[in-house]
Amino acid sequence: MKSIQAVSYPVHFQEKAYESLSNLIVQKNYSTIFILVDENTFEHCYPKFISKLITDKAIEVIEIESGEINKNLETCIGVWNAITELGGDRKSLLITLGGGVITDLGGFVASCFKRGIDFVNIPTTLLSMVDASVGGKTGVDLGVLKNQIGLFANPEMVLVDTDYLTTVSEREIKSGTAEIIKYGITYDIKLFNQIKENKGLQIADLIFRSIEIKNEVVLQDPKEKSLRKILNFGHTLGHAIESFYLESEDKENLTHGEAIAIGMVCESYISNKLLGFKIKKVNEVKNVILSIYDKTTLLKEDFGSIIDLLKHDKKNVNGQVNFVLLNDFENHQLDCKVAEELIIESMEFYNS
Amino acid sequence: MKSIQAVSYPVHFQEKAYESLSNLIVQKNYSTIFILVDENTFEHCYPKFISKLITDKAIEVIEIESGEINKNLETCIGVWNAITELGGDRKSLLITLGGGVITDLGGFVASCFKRGIDFVNIPTTLLSMVDASVGGKTGVDLGVLKNQIGLFANPEMVLVDTDYLTTVSEREIKSGTAEIIKYGITYDIKLFNQIKENKGLQIADLIFRSIEIKNEVVLQDPKEKSLRKILNFGHTLGHAIESFYLESEDKENLTHGEAIAIGMVCESYISNKLLGFKIKKVNEVKNVILSIYDKTTLLKEDFGSIIDLLKHDKKNVNGQVNFVLLNDFENHQLDCKVAEELIIESMEFYNS
Repeated sequence: MKSIQAVSYPVHFQEKAYESLSNLIVQKNYSTIFILVDENTFEHCYPKFISKLITDKAIEVIEIESGEINKNLETCIGVWNAITELGGDRKSLLITLGGGVITDLGGFVASCFKRGIDFVNIPTTLLSMVDASVGGKTGVDLGVLKNQIGLFANPEMVLVDTDYLTTVSEREIKSGTAEIIKYGITYDIKLFNQIKENKGLQIADLIFRSIEIKNEVVLQDPKEKSLRKILNFGHTLGHAIESFYLESEDKENLTHGEAIAIGMVCESYISNKLLGFKIKKVNEVKNVILSIYDKTTLLKEDFGSIIDLLKHDKKNVNGQVNFVLLNDFENHQLDCKVAEELIIESMEFYNS
Repeated sequence: MKSIQAVSYPVHFQEKAYESLSNLIVQKNYSTIFILVDENTFEHCYPKFISKLITDKAIEVIEIESGEINKNLETCIGVWNAITELGGDRKSLLITLGGGVITDLGGFVASCFKRGIDFVNIPTTLLSMVDASVGGKTGVDLGVLKNQIGLFANPEMVLVDTDYLTTVSEREIKSGTAEIIKYGITYDIKLFNQIKENKGLQIADLIFRSIEIKNEVVLQDPKEKSLRKILNFGHTLGHAIESFYLESEDKENLTHGEAIAIGMVCESYISNKLLGFKIKKVNEVKNVILSIYDKTTLLKEDFGSIIDLLKHDKKNVNGQVNFVLLNDFENHQLDCKVAEELIIESMEFYNS
């Protein structure tokens, strides 16, 4: 599979990618190599990784606890202290091996350590492969607010090896699928139809196409001033729902994809009401999503808390929530204001 | 006084600067304006500042505790939470009003909040005026390690008003003077001679010339790959001494300038031994410094701890401490390796 050239770094695929990484390490002559893992990727991915990498440099493993709940500044402080104690300097390299928590947090840690050291991302979940491989977003949560603290910072390269997907659960694969559906709906209806028809899909091809799309979008608008906002389709309400479940102690958490899937159904409904996005297409989105994800009934008494969380969305300006909505498949409208009543109605539509 | 154009932003002086800031606020149409202060700058500087600024926007004050001991990530988390609770968004502006702790920490906080909001620095101490006005370094300490976590990030503008210096102590003025001496020794011998002769010095002129020098250096080498390292003269050993006094509970802290002044004496001595920097000039540096600062006798039993701290210097690569030394005034040599014995000898020279 050929490589994709992102804004300022390449995304390499499969076997060839390890060769590129080994070469990078020789060229840059790093003083120390750190690899950031969690207990799962250390057990299931690290053995493969280390058997493929050719280097005579020592590799120091830094392990953090898995889970979104640990994507915070306390964890960063732990990693910064570990790098310091292990003798990290400005010529060190940090490799991240894991899902979005590891790649987002690791990129942030590297970018702030002694005002920035190099990092390489190796996403091991479908979500992090299709979502975090390009775009340069790094960050951690502040309380329940997702990615509230972070930076735009580019890795030296990204290594995508679909073999790592054999180590993750069905539920995690589905979480990543929601992002692929998003690329389909907003940018490439053929991709959406492939998922809808679910015939002979090659996961590697879906990943490649998703990264290609995200890269096209990000290259045109790296700092999310306009076009890039389409990548937030389903995410405005989806993030609020995800945060709400994360902070509700009596409710099981949703995966990112499960929350975003609900968000896409709701925001398609809102698009129908505000922009005339055809109701037949709204139902098509809903059906595809309900064919993949179990329905999570949103409780009426929770609507208020979810709407409160919307007010902290990073895209808001002057307290006004901004939605990306659809005129049609592949045709979006930015910065749409939506009345609270309609947001509630959209959640009732999802429930119905 | 005319403005200085730094890499990507202007440094404005005195009365005219408030006008520029008021204009910036109108042009950028910020959603919210936050001002970061400590208890001292809130009491002594904020009243003047707010009387000079012309804006109809509401200004939210965020106060942190003064002191290097608070230049850490815990304080950042407090400020990020405050900005969040006060409704900060991507179009917010953060103004920092204070010494180096406030400007360094505030720049870091702004650069990481929702992946970066605008900030404006208003240094109120001599040290922060001459050291932090240009260069784009932001950051906080990690334990005793100074500026271990941070970024290169540029403010929208810097406002320098020497009136604020009437609010700081004599000791703080001396702390800033050490940086001016450094610019003199490494880059402009006329400046050094002015301080040596101490005749009719206008502080505003010394500040302007210092910022001008730092700006010339930084423009040529923004990321500290080569020339910019001259700004570290006196700082390699100076930082270690400063950290040592900061972490020694039974010793009074040194100001940054007091520590750097000792560092410059020691590193001048080392320059004599390794590069033949004339001993007459070493003594000239020592005499000027001892005419300004009380001597702090460095204890033999502390030498080991100070040398251990040197090993964490950000400029180190592969555990090797790198010094910037002098062939002569205005003539430096980068990346010099120095044996431990010579470092100890240099501290004994300072003591003698």
